[in-house]
Amino acid sequence: MHIDAYYNGIFSNKKDIKIPLTDRAVFFGDGIYDAAIGRNGKIFMLKEHIDRFLSNAKAVDIPFCMDREKLKLTLERLARNSRYECFFLYFQLSRYSKERIHAYPETKLSNLLITITPIAIPNPKKKLTLTLAEDIRHSMCNIKTLNLIPAVLASHNADALGKDETVLVRDETVTECAHSNIHIIKNSKLITHPLDNFILPGISRMHLIKVCKKNGIEIIERKFGTNELFAADEVIVTSTSKLAMRVKSIDKTEYRLENNSIGSKLCDIMHSEFMEFTNK
Amino acid sequence: MHIDAYYNGIFSNKKDIKIPLTDRAVFFGDGIYDAAIGRNGKIFMLKEHIDRFLSNAKAVDIPFCMDREKLKLTLERLARNSRYECFFLYFQLSRYSKERIHAYPETKLSNLLITITPIAIPNPKKKLTLTLAEDIRHSMCNIKTLNLIPAVLASHNADALGKDETVLVRDETVTECAHSNIHIIKNSKLITHPLDNFILPGISRMHLIKVCKKNGIEIIERKFGTNELFAADEVIVTSTSKLAMRVKSIDKTEYRLENNSIGSKLCDIMHSEFMEFTNK
Repeated sequence: MHIDAYYNGIFSNKKDIKIPLTDRAVFFGDGIYDAAIGRNGKIFMLKEHIDRFLSNAKAVDIPFCMDREKLKLTLERLARNSRYECFFLYFQLSRYSKERIHAYPETKLSNLLITITPIAIPNPKKKLTLTLAEDIRHSMCNIKTLNLIPAVLASHNADALGKDETVLVRDETVTECAHSNIHIIKNSKLITHPLDNFILPGISRMHLIKVCKKNGIEIIERKFGTNELFAADEVIVTSTSKLAMRVKSIDKTEYRLENNSIGSKLCDIMHSEFMEFTNK
Repeated sequence: MHIDAYYNGIFSNKKDIKIPLTDRAVFFGDGIYDAAIGRNGKIFMLKEHIDRFLSNAKAVDIPFCMDREKLKLTLERLARNSRYECFFLYFQLSRYSKERIHAYPETKLSNLLITITPIAIPNPKKKLTLTLAEDIRHSMCNIKTLNLIPAVLASHNADALGKDETVLVRDETVTECAHSNIHIIKNSKLITHPLDNFILPGISRMHLIKVCKKNGIEIIERKFGTNELFAADEVIVTSTSKLAMRVKSIDKTEYRLENNSIGSKLCDIMHSEFMEFTNK
């Protein structure tokens, strides 16, 4: 049997693992998650993903039932034993399983679910096509909760239009994409939405900022609207599974894509760092 | 075996029913639900609940895999066979079970889950104590989705304070409660938030409006803020499981509760209609 899933102590495969209907993920989406990618059994930025996972669990008051080191070993075991060259490692924590009532009693219980899935190695040369939509999500977008219907609908809409992602706009501000962060480059500076409750503190966003700093590229963390987005020299989208990719177009707005641009270099560096870390 | 749950064709009990981890309710809260109450095997306002359920499924683009009449018969079968005098009948529809990707492919599949649980007969004489919180939910509150973390956290907070419910306030407007609608009575008129994407079109809200109309009480559907809420003659909370109940206090604001007030009569009439409909 190929082990590609885990639920509350059981290693098995996705088809065989069944969860109780009373898991509060089922009734309320009452949980949080994180996801990392890896290659050759090695997980990229694992510490950062675990840090965020634990801090998100705290933010929604879900107790974590396993110690940090055991979580790390469990994730590493799934990664090491997987058949996939490049993989997506997903882990979610939901509030215990019990009768459906909104107000949960105090408990030390929670449910840990992990899956591992093959993915293609992120391609830093890929150019993304985007569309725009209103950001109708709740105001706790800094937490990776399982309350993802607006992201699901926006992603489906992009897909139906033949686009790769949807840029979300809230009160005239570009926040992020349905499941990525977005950044613009203007006059050789990187402009990115500041960390608040309207965007996810992406691990790849943090990685991009580090790479900019190392390479002397000025970073401005401030809000920007669609006018600035359309007038940008380059647009970069970051996410765990994409790392960093440049944008070719947003609806009818097309961007010039030069081979040696700042954006192109940033995408290449992030990709190289991933490849180096995950080499055998 | 006591049958109190159903999942995709299987009647069983809550402890035995297991669902695949790939049900999109688990990963994304990607589904909608409805709930009715009943007594003596009879389900109150069933048509209205099924109507809303089907229209919510459409709103989030989830195909319904069973015809309307069969859904009705399935719900009625669980209600008729239940051991409970008064019961809460919960039914949810989630988007098919498959690999976790945000953008869902077109499909005719969905997952239907039903549970039945005993509850106390709603007590129209009960007086509720409320607290206030900021409404941080998404902007599709008119749809009963499974994306309920903000409601879960607000309900837990009320519970921890020893209160019954939380009034939610968005941009200075009182929208609704964490899992109820809220209405005020001022100068013998009922004032209630208009139907839009910030409140649920509650079946008990609709019932309350009908009862007002029948009894010559003027209804004003418009927004109101906390000042008006605190200055109201009476405050009424409606929900499926509560029907209608009056409010005793909101944090430090206390309300005078007279025995023959308009609010008291409205709560009594709704309760009587429920009891009459569900008599043996």
